[in-house]
Amino acid sequence: MSKLIDTAALQAALQEFADQRDWDRFHNPRNLILALTGEVGELAEIFQWISDQDAEQIMLSDKAEHVRQEVSDVLLYLMRLVMVLDIDLDAAVKAKMAMNAIKYPPKHS
Amino acid sequence: MSKLIDTAALQAALQEFADQRDWDRFHNPRNLILALTGEVGELAEIFQWISDQDAEQIMLSDKAEHVRQEVSDVLLYLMRLVMVLDIDLDAAVKAKMAMNAIKYPPKHS
Amino acid sequence: MSKLIDTAALQAALQEFADQRDWDRFHNPRNLILALTGEVGELAEIFQWISDQDAEQIMLSDKAEHVRQEVSDVLLYLMRLVMVLDIDLDAAVKAKMAMNAIKYPPKHS
Amino acid sequence: MSKLIDTAALQAALQEFADQRDWDRFHNPRNLILALTGEVGELAEIFQWISDQDAEQIMLSDKAEHVRQEVSDVLLYLMRLVMVLDIDLDAAVKAKMAMNAIKYPPKHS
Repeated sequence: MSKLIDTAALQAALQEFADQRDWDRFHNPRNLILALTGEVGELAEIFQWISDQDAEQIMLSDKAEHVRQEVSDVLLYLMRLVMVLDIDLDAAVKAKMAMNAIKYPPKHS
Repeated sequence: MSKLIDTAALQAALQEFADQRDWDRFHNPRNLILALTGEVGELAEIFQWISDQDAEQIMLSDKAEHVRQEVSDVLLYLMRLVMVLDIDLDAAVKAKMAMNAIKYPPKHS
Repeated sequence: MSKLIDTAALQAALQEFADQRDWDRFHNPRNLILALTGEVGELAEIFQWISDQDAEQIMLSDKAEHVRQEVSDVLLYLMRLVMVLDIDLDAAVKAKMAMNAIKYPPKHS
Repeated sequence: MSKLIDTAALQAALQEFADQRDWDRFHNPRNLILALTGEVGELAEIFQWISDQDAEQIMLSDKAEHVRQEVSDVLLYLMRLVMVLDIDLDAAVKAKMAMNAIKYPPKHS
């Protein structure tokens, strides 16, 4: 089965980025989860005072770039967590989707 | 420049999964951010009463499978958010990493 | 100026509760913030798939008790954090509301 | 049984504050939970790169005021949520602590 998600190049780029800044010493699991919490909080703040209707159109607004940045930050800290825990993300995601398929049977196929 | 992250197959699988369950009606941006908050909370709970030292060894413990599941859930809701907002995640991540490289100059290369 | 919020009895009850279970050793600031993140996540999950309209009526639904429990859990971990950091919560809240009053001038009084 | 937590004055002050700014229209439950998520994220960010040891001494550092502000913001949005949902916070907290006392029996009294 081929990969659902390929993050090899991103992981290599992030490791080089961290190495050049001596950041591995900060990137332990609990620190990264607190950082992830911070970024999800920043993402939530963009959407906190707008309606569901406006939220669906947000990428047509002047907030689009901010959304792209915060979504990226969430992904980047999640990837660093995956890296320091040495998780095979593609395998983990496939296993979770298989669990979800059993937990939530399809209405139609 | 080639991709840092390739999520095409994952996005296709998630769309099929959502289609088979009529889930697109639930997957609006604010709903997905609340769901993402929930999953980050579940991930945080695994690490809430353990030391930084034990956290670094968690994948050798009986909590490893739970960690893989929660990390996957965070990724899956983030991907659904990316999908409903029609964000080019690879481009967004490249742009954010370029910003970070300017904001945090390397100590050494 | 009298108190805006009085938590003396709650703090005493929580300290007795923690003492009876030897929980002070777990209740350091970072642990409590991860626990707080977990509880906010559980609160968010209750609201993740419902409309703003249904959310406003949630206390009339069978989810009311769950909401009361999660709101309480958020408060309890926040109080424990206040306690281990020895913050005067009433003074902190008064100071923050004074800052907010300057930052957001009233439209009308 | 007397109150464990008394927030009557704070609720009155917050309602006056909201009334003067026409903020009730923004303060619906899902908006407030997203705002709460944002504030917990800001609190988490203060603690993300420091050790558990430094975290215990943070109120002696130049970050003390920032911590007091973010703790207050978390409380204020939680209070607004309690207000719009018309929850009796003291009763809710007493009920939750009674549940916790059963779920986690004391080691010693």
